[in-house]
Amino acid sequence: MRALTYTDTLRFDPEYVAPTAGQGECLIRVKLAGICATDHHITKGYMGFSGVLGHEMVGIVESGSPSWTGKRVVCEINCVCQGCDMCSAGLSTHCRKRTVLGIAGRNGCFADLVAVPERNLHEVPDSISDEDAVFVEPLAAAYQVVQQVPIDARTKAVVVGSGRLGLLVAQVLSATGCKLEVVGRNAKTLLFCEKKGIQSVAVDDLIARNDRDVVVDCTGSPGGLELAAALVRPRGTIVLKSTYAGASPVDLAPLVVNEVNLLGSRCGPFPPAIQALARKAVDVSSMISRTFPIERGLEAMAASADSSYIKVLLKINPA
Amino acid sequence: MRALTYTDTLRFDPEYVAPTAGQGECLIRVKLAGICATDHHITKGYMGFSGVLGHEMVGIVESGSPSWTGKRVVCEINCVCQGCDMCSAGLSTHCRKRTVLGIAGRNGCFADLVAVPERNLHEVPDSISDEDAVFVEPLAAAYQVVQQVPIDARTKAVVVGSGRLGLLVAQVLSATGCKLEVVGRNAKTLLFCEKKGIQSVAVDDLIARNDRDVVVDCTGSPGGLELAAALVRPRGTIVLKSTYAGASPVDLAPLVVNEVNLLGSRCGPFPPAIQALARKAVDVSSMISRTFPIERGLEAMAASADSSYIKVLLKINPA
Repeated sequence: MRALTYTDTLRFDPEYVAPTAGQGECLIRVKLAGICATDHHITKGYMGFSGVLGHEMVGIVESGSPSWTGKRVVCEINCVCQGCDMCSAGLSTHCRKRTVLGIAGRNGCFADLVAVPERNLHEVPDSISDEDAVFVEPLAAAYQVVQQVPIDARTKAVVVGSGRLGLLVAQVLSATGCKLEVVGRNAKTLLFCEKKGIQSVAVDDLIARNDRDVVVDCTGSPGGLELAAALVRPRGTIVLKSTYAGASPVDLAPLVVNEVNLLGSRCGPFPPAIQALARKAVDVSSMISRTFPIERGLEAMAASADSSYIKVLLKINPA
Repeated sequence: MRALTYTDTLRFDPEYVAPTAGQGECLIRVKLAGICATDHHITKGYMGFSGVLGHEMVGIVESGSPSWTGKRVVCEINCVCQGCDMCSAGLSTHCRKRTVLGIAGRNGCFADLVAVPERNLHEVPDSISDEDAVFVEPLAAAYQVVQQVPIDARTKAVVVGSGRLGLLVAQVLSATGCKLEVVGRNAKTLLFCEKKGIQSVAVDDLIARNDRDVVVDCTGSPGGLELAAALVRPRGTIVLKSTYAGASPVDLAPLVVNEVNLLGSRCGPFPPAIQALARKAVDVSSMISRTFPIERGLEAMAASADSSYIKVLLKINPA
């Protein structure tokens, strides 16, 4: 099958060995997949991953479970054991033995076929297009923020970083009615916010005075935390969504002195993301800048790293 | 008056200008003062402080308020405005305009006399010796941990760092009945823990497997957070008590991936610290390794940085 793989180097392989479905797994024929910052971080060594990249997708169940076959689905990315202390405590996204689609120990979805546990599947309602459905996974990650931190109309919140994840988080926070600002460097994505009625500020115009209740760092870079620390009020909360490879210089003293609550935040719940897309409460399709066929995956990855584009998709199997 | 000062360099000044008490302030004649890691960090540039060092003390009120004069007191170190948004929100330790004794914008207590706001004073009960009372401020900082994080008999907790603050935090946590370990490098201080019935582990013997509910970093060094991140369970809590000057390389990805709650923690409540010392629930006097007269302040600072000593005190005005 065709696949976009990373093993020391990124390459398109037209004849990668197709997966077989293991016990409790289904094979999904991937229709459309999304490129995420994590895919880029992996190509810089993050997670030490090797194999087929990709964890954002929509596809059709091809085999593995008669009740699922033919259904259009999105997939949770953490494949879990259901037996460890974390799974037993209801924290299965933190399963001790988990593999993660295209990120850790399991091939991802930048390929014709991907094998995933049946329990990871969510059917996509007909009212959601493929182009919207491919955003369910990152939108779920955005919903994780409001699962972790109480945010309401009185909350002064700021999203740092107006990239793909930042725009999703901003839309999710905006729906809470909180006092929201998005801080970023990219005029194009800040304009996207303004069009959605979300106040936006160029980072160079920002005056940081430690007065925000909640700051969500979606920059994907070490500088994001420093800015977040300058924005958050004493005893406020920073939600850290940025992951990147390796250690970077960070001055943690302001977090201690201001007794800040720093919350790591990763994958989130699929149901609210699916529901939000079904009722058009979040606009994701306007974020799609380009769509490439999988054969042009290297070009797609390069475009995805270019700040003049927002979201880049891979078309793998047309409907 | 005699004073131990830091302005680019640490020096003992036999004729430093004595303070006068401002509006609402008292003058305290300092009996005994404690040297803290923060004092050392200041001499490396932390907080950009210049002036009389010192923030841990017990003394006698000399003037400024007739009702306080002659009383033996300890002093909260944050001197606040009572008017800003933080003070109004009940978060006066985070006052926007605060000065902090011997740390920020206000001379400290390594001197014959120190001026402090009357509202910062706490009378010391007769049952507490000077040698114990000088620990009220750091012990309060240890009590801040249990104010911020619920810890009970089911909690698996670990204190990283068996220095002065680590030993105080360990004793406070131990009183909760939690499953406690102290991790450190110093055989002497680990032995101190064992004598108190607190399990201790040398850092080289430690197997970190991300299974502790709460990890308190009292190392005062950047490596502490890395170890804490390896010890804490997914969705667990790291309390960060370490402050040090400047930025250090930190790999934050484990905090995001494991959705860790990192809580900065600074000053704490004086009343539980005073009560604990009054009922001998915490042993601080065994932590005193040496006491120097203030004239030998430079020698005292050097001794305090030497890991063969635990707590070093400055005797300023004998009883």
